[in-house]
Amino acid sequence: MIEHRLDSTVVHYAWDKSIPARLEVASGDVITVDSRGGGDGYYTPQSTHEDVLRRPRPKGHALTGPIRVRGARPGDAIRVDLIEMRTWDWGYTFVGPGWGLLQDELPGPFLKIWDLSNGRTAQFAPGIEIPIEPFHGILGLAPAAAGEHPTMPPLRTGGNMDTKQLVVGSSVWLPVEVDGGLFSIGDAHAAQGDGEVCITAIETGATTRLRLTVVSDMPLSAPEFVTPGPLTPAANTGSWYGTMGIGPDLMEATKDAVRAMIRYLGRERGLTPNESYVLASVAVDLKLSEVVGAPNWVVSACLPQSIFR
Amino acid sequence: MIEHRLDSTVVHYAWDKSIPARLEVASGDVITVDSRGGGDGYYTPQSTHEDVLRRPRPKGHALTGPIRVRGARPGDAIRVDLIEMRTWDWGYTFVGPGWGLLQDELPGPFLKIWDLSNGRTAQFAPGIEIPIEPFHGILGLAPAAAGEHPTMPPLRTGGNMDTKQLVVGSSVWLPVEVDGGLFSIGDAHAAQGDGEVCITAIETGATTRLRLTVVSDMPLSAPEFVTPGPLTPAANTGSWYGTMGIGPDLMEATKDAVRAMIRYLGRERGLTPNESYVLASVAVDLKLSEVVGAPNWVVSACLPQSIFR
Repeated sequence: MIEHRLDSTVVHYAWDKSIPARLEVASGDVITVDSRGGGDGYYTPQSTHEDVLRRPRPKGHALTGPIRVRGARPGDAIRVDLIEMRTWDWGYTFVGPGWGLLQDELPGPFLKIWDLSNGRTAQFAPGIEIPIEPFHGILGLAPAAAGEHPTMPPLRTGGNMDTKQLVVGSSVWLPVEVDGGLFSIGDAHAAQGDGEVCITAIETGATTRLRLTVVSDMPLSAPEFVTPGPLTPAANTGSWYGTMGIGPDLMEATKDAVRAMIRYLGRERGLTPNESYVLASVAVDLKLSEVVGAPNWVVSACLPQSIFR
Repeated sequence: MIEHRLDSTVVHYAWDKSIPARLEVASGDVITVDSRGGGDGYYTPQSTHEDVLRRPRPKGHALTGPIRVRGARPGDAIRVDLIEMRTWDWGYTFVGPGWGLLQDELPGPFLKIWDLSNGRTAQFAPGIEIPIEPFHGILGLAPAAAGEHPTMPPLRTGGNMDTKQLVVGSSVWLPVEVDGGLFSIGDAHAAQGDGEVCITAIETGATTRLRLTVVSDMPLSAPEFVTPGPLTPAANTGSWYGTMGIGPDLMEATKDAVRAMIRYLGRERGLTPNESYVLASVAVDLKLSEVVGAPNWVVSACLPQSIFR
């Protein structure tokens, strides 16, 4: 087995099959990859709320890659086995104008800097501890369509999936659309709720060891994955509080469920709306409770009470 | 503390504040309530696939109630504490034309009869066991708007929420819109995935002990709840397999994620599409993985591998 190393001194800010591969590997090779934080060096542990407003609109997520996997062809999948991941010892979460689920009513600016140095929990405030369960928001392959594709929207080939289940020990299958697949990675998160409602998780950088394997003739409509064990193991240790959005539009119901969670956190925990929004983004899981009781659907926002110590 | 008993010899099939209360209780009283199965007596353990087509369109869910809680006024909430629940020893799940998330491509007819007699798991097929985690699909209060409201859509006052987290030991707060609240219950489920994609869970009847308590001046936009412990404890014991739907419309992304799960169950487990659809409805949890990567969102369909023995 060959081990490779790819640092993040060179990054790219869009999906584009014309970007030359920085590394070519054989199927089954292991690579240790550095990824920059989502802020691409802008935020530091000393940053303030006002720095959110001063930041120029980013070009896109800073991605490390592409990595070409020999033998991968359209119609195949590339299986990514996530072997090890070490995040930085700090991270950030921001609320800013023009970003996030509730951007019209909660434009920020708000910035939370997190201490990740103990590797187990990140303290939101005294008595509120978020379990650290790191994963990559972005794992993806280059799409077949020519030209630059922004990194924000997830695509059939993966990308910005922000799927918290993809922790170390998981495998994810990505559909190949171009020869060699052209794999890139970034957007490391130390913790996130299903939904990532304020648009940032606990954003950080990471060094990640992974294996890329070609699976021939595995046509997929979108990525698929398998987890190494139970979901949300560090947080799912006690009771959960749930709020609901009920109505005929799933996105509006989602917003309503999150609004109700923000009100709950204000009412019962004394948090401000910005604090509650950040807490929801890093710890609240959004569930589609029912999608068949036409014309109304139910979205539930679930907060693990175990974060309150 | 006063204990009451309400059987299901009389039921109602719509939400309507003009339906006279069958029982009036004080805040804090405990009631043991019977509920008919969702099929309202139509299905039996001997029913067949063809019986799904022979059933006349139902009037609505058969609900036991209403129960008037003295002192409840609009602007209050009624807290429902779920103390005990005993389901029947059998249940059913159907796929039928005109019902469910994928009704255009999977119209059935298909009927699965489940043996619930051991109280722990329900066997789908040899080697596939669904943990029994009972809850009520319907818990609700009468809406303020005059007239009959169908039972299928969930409402601000609750109703057909089909929220699997509401197991025994949970409390749910329902917003009161009419004096006395007018609580009704039904649609018992022995197990269900978040989403209930084929429109039926493991449908059964139940006898349920619960407490109704008025919480003054608690204006809620929709129901809220607290669970007694970790989520999905019986199924969340090992790894999960996930499929994704990615796109700009949450309902279409939901359908795509479920379609991919049905293909997975065919490919890897040899199940037919109808079998896979039923298994997804009773065991697959739908998650909103991200709702901020405009213009595309990610819905994940997650299957606990622990059901395969």
